[in-house]
Amino acid sequence: MTTTEFDTAVDARVTAPNPAPPAPEPGPVDTDVLRTVLDGRSAALRERARREFPADLFGPIDHLSTAEQRDLTRARLRVLAEMGGHEAGFSSRYGGGDSPGAQVGQFEVLGFGDASLMIKSGVQWGLFGGAVQALGTERHHAELLPRLLRLELVGCFAMTETGHGSDVASLGTTATYDPAAQEFVVHTPDVSCRKDYIGGAAEDAEVAVVFAQLITGGTSHGVHAFVVPLRGEDGNDLPGVRRFDDGRKAGLNGVDNGRLEFDSVRVPRTALLDRYAHVAPDGTYSSPIASKNARFFTMLGALVKGRVSISGGAIGQTKVALEIALRYALRRKQFARPGTEKGERGEEVVLLDYLAHQRRLLIPLATTYALSFAQDELLGEMDELLRVQLAGGDPDPARQRAFEAHAAGMKVASTWHATRTIQTCREACGGNGYLADSRLPQLKADTDVFTTFEGDNTVLLQLVAKSQLTAYAQQFSDLDTLGMARFATRDFVTTLAGRSPARSLVADVVEAGRVPDDLHDRAWQLRMLADRERHVVESLAKRMRKARSRSEQDEFESVDGLQDHLLLAGRAHVDRVVAEAFAAAIARTEDPAVATLLGEVLDLHVLALLEAEKGWYLEHRRMTTLRAKAVTHAVNELCRRLRPRTGELLAGFGIPRHWLASSLVPGSTAPEESAGAPS
Amino acid sequence: MTTTEFDTAVDARVTAPNPAPPAPEPGPVDTDVLRTVLDGRSAALRERARREFPADLFGPIDHLSTAEQRDLTRARLRVLAEMGGHEAGFSSRYGGGDSPGAQVGQFEVLGFGDASLMIKSGVQWGLFGGAVQALGTERHHAELLPRLLRLELVGCFAMTETGHGSDVASLGTTATYDPAAQEFVVHTPDVSCRKDYIGGAAEDAEVAVVFAQLITGGTSHGVHAFVVPLRGEDGNDLPGVRRFDDGRKAGLNGVDNGRLEFDSVRVPRTALLDRYAHVAPDGTYSSPIASKNARFFTMLGALVKGRVSISGGAIGQTKVALEIALRYALRRKQFARPGTEKGERGEEVVLLDYLAHQRRLLIPLATTYALSFAQDELLGEMDELLRVQLAGGDPDPARQRAFEAHAAGMKVASTWHATRTIQTCREACGGNGYLADSRLPQLKADTDVFTTFEGDNTVLLQLVAKSQLTAYAQQFSDLDTLGMARFATRDFVTTLAGRSPARSLVADVVEAGRVPDDLHDRAWQLRMLADRERHVVESLAKRMRKARSRSEQDEFESVDGLQDHLLLAGRAHVDRVVAEAFAAAIARTEDPAVATLLGEVLDLHVLALLEAEKGWYLEHRRMTTLRAKAVTHAVNELCRRLRPRTGELLAGFGIPRHWLASSLVPGSTAPEESAGAPS
Repeated sequence: MTTTEFDTAVDARVTAPNPAPPAPEPGPVDTDVLRTVLDGRSAALRERARREFPADLFGPIDHLSTAEQRDLTRARLRVLAEMGGHEAGFSSRYGGGDSPGAQVGQFEVLGFGDASLMIKSGVQWGLFGGAVQALGTERHHAELLPRLLRLELVGCFAMTETGHGSDVASLGTTATYDPAAQEFVVHTPDVSCRKDYIGGAAEDAEVAVVFAQLITGGTSHGVHAFVVPLRGEDGNDLPGVRRFDDGRKAGLNGVDNGRLEFDSVRVPRTALLDRYAHVAPDGTYSSPIASKNARFFTMLGALVKGRVSISGGAIGQTKVALEIALRYALRRKQFARPGTEKGERGEEVVLLDYLAHQRRLLIPLATTYALSFAQDELLGEMDELLRVQLAGGDPDPARQRAFEAHAAGMKVASTWHATRTIQTCREACGGNGYLADSRLPQLKADTDVFTTFEGDNTVLLQLVAKSQLTAYAQQFSDLDTLGMARFATRDFVTTLAGRSPARSLVADVVEAGRVPDDLHDRAWQLRMLADRERHVVESLAKRMRKARSRSEQDEFESVDGLQDHLLLAGRAHVDRVVAEAFAAAIARTEDPAVATLLGEVLDLHVLALLEAEKGWYLEHRRMTTLRAKAVTHAVNELCRRLRPRTGELLAGFGIPRHWLASSLVPGSTAPEESAGAPS
Repeated sequence: MTTTEFDTAVDARVTAPNPAPPAPEPGPVDTDVLRTVLDGRSAALRERARREFPADLFGPIDHLSTAEQRDLTRARLRVLAEMGGHEAGFSSRYGGGDSPGAQVGQFEVLGFGDASLMIKSGVQWGLFGGAVQALGTERHHAELLPRLLRLELVGCFAMTETGHGSDVASLGTTATYDPAAQEFVVHTPDVSCRKDYIGGAAEDAEVAVVFAQLITGGTSHGVHAFVVPLRGEDGNDLPGVRRFDDGRKAGLNGVDNGRLEFDSVRVPRTALLDRYAHVAPDGTYSSPIASKNARFFTMLGALVKGRVSISGGAIGQTKVALEIALRYALRRKQFARPGTEKGERGEEVVLLDYLAHQRRLLIPLATTYALSFAQDELLGEMDELLRVQLAGGDPDPARQRAFEAHAAGMKVASTWHATRTIQTCREACGGNGYLADSRLPQLKADTDVFTTFEGDNTVLLQLVAKSQLTAYAQQFSDLDTLGMARFATRDFVTTLAGRSPARSLVADVVEAGRVPDDLHDRAWQLRMLADRERHVVESLAKRMRKARSRSEQDEFESVDGLQDHLLLAGRAHVDRVVAEAFAAAIARTEDPAVATLLGEVLDLHVLALLEAEKGWYLEHRRMTTLRAKAVTHAVNELCRRLRPRTGELLAGFGIPRHWLASSLVPGSTAPEESAGAPS
């Protein structure tokens, strides 16, 4: 987050032109245009995948045994390796494409298909390959990148330990330098320090990037990454390496997760991925980054692409679930229309004609559109930053930190949205949604872990909040008197409303004077989100200062009491960023029919969000009770308006019919699959 | 719901004595007493199950293939048939125990164990056996009950069709009477009318209770139940019967769900379960219930035990998930305490010491206690009503309807609570919770369908609301002038607050004058819930009348627009009933230490509910913004107070350690299972 982000939020977006009121009888949009707009930066790559991916690259795997799922996923990964696309994120000097955004775009497309394949490829080319690329130097690049890109060398990413997940700084594995042998000794001190849940560790990985405490001359320099071979030429594990199988999981059973234990395993001095730290033959440690803490965060920051990928993959899987549930809701009928006789057929109501069903599915559909545009914006940021890194440079630290917070927030938003939405889709399909051949159980089970891997969502959200606090503190120290004056004028009403109980009625009155049409006022919508973020962060900053000044209290206790406030600040930030990205995308859209349709989708997303958060808005006098009721009314109206546009909005996802592979969507599976086999 | 339920809500509970303020340093309670209080009416039966169930009756099955899971479940069902307990719900004339509540109590205990076994037993003795008992007459009882109780006859319950789920009245299967042969011809007109998702239909069932439109003399008399043999003496399916396998499901794969198709299958006239309808040899139809509609609902009402059972089973599975996640949270550490050096061990914080983690897990723990007490109350009601039925009588229709609404509401509350809570537990255990050997994936997958089977929750909640509307209308027509006066006095402030914007400040002022301690005032808490229900139902009734009077609008459109209001009314009702049942149980508790602890648990449940619903309370001026903030503060304080009591509260569940069968709970599995097998 930059120091002026709060300003930007209010200036640029709030003054954006108001979209024209929607036409009373909108005609259908050109869904090719809609799809291209939604595809965004990855449009070309997605189109290629839709055309060229072999028909059997995806398809159900959860009817198979664990061993069979792993075999099939391996085979599919080989096909993917031949198809290419994954190399985009690597340096062109070693067969890469210098286009990290395109690589993640490909990952998102895999989210339309098979999540095991998606994660398996993510381990190889995202985590393992990404660590070599980001943390290694030329020696490692030359030796490893060409082989790992061609899948001639299968690797894994051994960071998490059984006893240490989110707290990477506390990892227990050690890599102790032995100057006599010029080797590092990689060791697992106890079972809590075994590497755990490592994709590829159970069976496939021949080499691991191991994160361990680097110790030289008796001093620990913190966590560093090392390339550790696991398997010898003969195919057997090397001495001192022990693997365990994590066994069956809720989902993603095509990926062989496992545990690794190292019993004084020796690797050469050059095994250290030494972009940010160097150990001389005599054991002298040096680093271009003086602070141990800053070094740690720089190294972790270099790996942020994983979170961006998971966010995209989660959105892809959510789209599939929504399309299955909505296409079912467009066909399936239940209950006769009032007025018709019970038991009469043909007069039954289509599920999606019920308001409750529209609310259940069309609101998540709108939010999925919003997240897609926000994800595309994130890819743009990432592309710019990682290109600097690929060229051997270091991105601007402030921009890098802002990007990391943005990526963390998006990962949280997309993955919780996926978990919630896929659950809703399952329930909206009733018993049908519980059958494996609907595909919904697999989507649910596969994506479930997304909320806790690549960073636990609850922890990440607090990271976002802390980054907001830093930005907030900086902004205030940077503001000159003129800036303060500008600030005060611009936010007259809202600031007053938040600060003085006596003046709180002002906001009520100002707001109550507006007619309900104003709910579609984009400036107002975005301002409501920006204002909530600002208020939550300001009050958090105040409480933080107060908590820290109370010296009689235990430091943990005082800060822990603010955890919920931190989580709220994180959410409020992401809510704003996502809506702004959607608004910006609409502003860029040239086709007026598409822009109008997207405008209504954004209206639904934002107003449903305000409705869900009305407790906060009422509590903080940002909304009158009258307005709160008008918001609910507007959400219902938007559901009614968008219900006939469902088909167009699904077409915008651009998921090839046979990729849906669901018995609930005619034509997406072979006919006998959906009919049920006679027993 | 009785006509005076609204009065009861306000009179009896609001004037209940205030529990004494909790002692500052409460000592531990006697957990045997706590367990007995929580076990309620089923205490004896639960204790017997804990002592006598064989050690291998439960235990993980999801690592097995579908066929193996079905085999294991069949074998376990045979053990259960020998253990007994299931017969309790049947007439003592045929080997039963005349104690339906005890039968459902046993079902709840199975919820601690294996859900496939629980559902398999529920199909045999709850749905199939229950339909024979409730809808059949002596001939059916004598012929079928002794055999089905001993598992010598395996049956299924064939109601739902591929195209007709919640709308049972529109089922398409026909049973046409042929007077010449004195037979019914059971027929499936098209694939949308195949019986679907039927437990046991894929493989095991030898006979089905089939729900079909009874047609005689060219007239349809609506849905009735028929006993239809599926398999002959030779073990092959009878002519005209076709079975299909529903195949793999998200969970419950020990149950063989399938589809049934009937091609003009002939059954004798006596196949009709004829308690509520009779067809004479010449085809003349007669029924003790004149109205077709009333007959239909009477027959369905006789089957309500299934919903009560699912509610109990869902609570049992939720308890297991909470115990796993909480015992993990009591051991697992993450992040060093602020002030200690990064990477230092031993100073890390136990997960459950974090406020955010307490909120995630202790609030659902409190709600699980609340639902348990409400479920016990429901069992009491059911027992009284079903004993009348078992004795051949008909329960009071008003009480029967009230019970059905109560059961529907509890089924909704318990199953959605299970889905949400088990998801939270999975996430709270991170990657560990994703591994099959944690047991959380199986709990999640098995219970997922509970929200949509035995009545889709969204549909059931609307049934609850409609029953409230009926009770409301009746209450007002019953009230004399004196009643109205009493009503007005009692609800002076709240009624005003809801009705006149000018007087809305009164409630604010009255409320703002209270000190935060009042939040633990039980009368206030229950009044808040009763008041919300009343307001929501009153405003719904008004909108209903208005919608119906607008003749220019399509009838469907006008009522459909109120769907969300209906759902809210249903929720508000259940929220009140659950909290009141908990309060009543505490009032009955003799051990003061246990009562005090339970009082804090109820405080947490209710205040967290008020916090979650603060949008409504603020919008309707039932809460000041100051009070809303105090509620959040009180919830946090209660989390802190109850955190050291977690072990006692879990002991109150009384789940034998080895039934937990989770790698995350030491001592609940064989040691090698939790260590991970070397590969």
